Amino acid sequence: MKVLIIGAHGSVGRTAVAALDGHEVVQASRSGDHPVDATDPASVERLFAEVGEVDAVVVTLGSVAFRPLADLTRDDYESAFRNKVLAQLDVVRIGTPYVRDRGSFTLTSGILAREPIATGAAASLVNGALESFVLAAATELPRGIRINAVSPSVLEDAPSYHSSFPGFVPVSSHRVGQAFAKSVLGVQSGQVLAVD
Amino acid sequence: MKVLIIGAHGSVGRTAVAALDGHEVVQASRSGDHPVDATDPASVERLFAEVGEVDAVVVTLGSVAFRPLADLTRDDYESAFRNKVLAQLDVVRIGTPYVRDRGSFTLTSGILAREPIATGAAASLVNGALESFVLAAATELPRGIRINAVSPSVLEDAPSYHSSFPGFVPVSSHRVGQAFAKSVLGVQSGQVLAVD
Repeated sequence: MKVLIIGAHGSVGRTAVAALDGHEVVQASRSGDHPVDATDPASVERLFAEVGEVDAVVVTLGSVAFRPLADLTRDDYESAFRNKVLAQLDVVRIGTPYVRDRGSFTLTSGILAREPIATGAAASLVNGALESFVLAAATELPRGIRINAVSPSVLEDAPSYHSSFPGFVPVSSHRVGQAFAKSVLGVQSGQVLAVD
Repeated sequence: MKVLIIGAHGSVGRTAVAALDGHEVVQASRSGDHPVDATDPASVERLFAEVGEVDAVVVTLGSVAFRPLADLTRDDYESAFRNKVLAQLDVVRIGTPYVRDRGSFTLTSGILAREPIATGAAASLVNGALESFVLAAATELPRGIRINAVSPSVLEDAPSYHSSFPGFVPVSSHRVGQAFAKSVLGVQSGQVLAVD
């Protein structure tokens, strides 16, 4: 199976790369062999034109401001939406013609869609948006193409975040990777694959 | 109790007005005694300056494009986000200083956050964003201020939408209004009050 992973070099993207070992994995990220700026639709267009047809697309990206609610600005919410939501939606919109029949998209949301942390309101917002989008988009994608979201808790391998997630039990990269594998290699569609 | 209802003249807003009969209800909408364009932060600022302190704010607004997934553009998603999400967030951000201790905000999302209909992907997206925002914002609002979202199914009183919601049992304006009353007059915070 040929799988394009966008955001392949991030801590979440690497879990998908590892879990899909043995498949033809094309790793795209801000730099490297397949550079892409996923916030720029023209860059996403170029990536798909270069990579060509794929069986699956995995997207793990999107930076979001973490700030106390009182300090979050209109710009913070707009940036979070552009960077994490619109960028992943553009991958779906632009990438659909390149995905083979019965292929799949797997987006990345996160546990803050369903549980709060301090300073996480913008992150909750964008993750909730992605999770509801997936359930709707799954019903309208053509040619049997599936779509899911992987929604992990904080990663064991991202210890700098642990203190911001008190009482959240960090999840292993292996388990997060397996959620991507389930979405890519399984049959589910319209699902949020929570890893927590 | 003094309650500001933004979007008071829409089919959802009217349910809140009716349910809060007996309270001091200030009805704001695009036209009328308290005109506001909720997509313009300066207009929201002016509204709060004019209305002054309140015990509760209810927001019911936001137009979203309904189109097949393949026809939804980047602009459609951006407009939906600005009109339904950012506008409600601005009401919270700008309005917080005007809400009395232990007052409340009630936002409006909708059933498409949790169930799909054809052409509803942008609507699902924005409703999901609002519902996750509410759970996070509730933990950080100051002075005991609460926040919830009312998330109704299609309304009996909006028959032009019924054919787009096959098999969804339309809900009465009375029941939707009671959800607003529960949020405004009750004790919940960080909740999605589903009406379906």
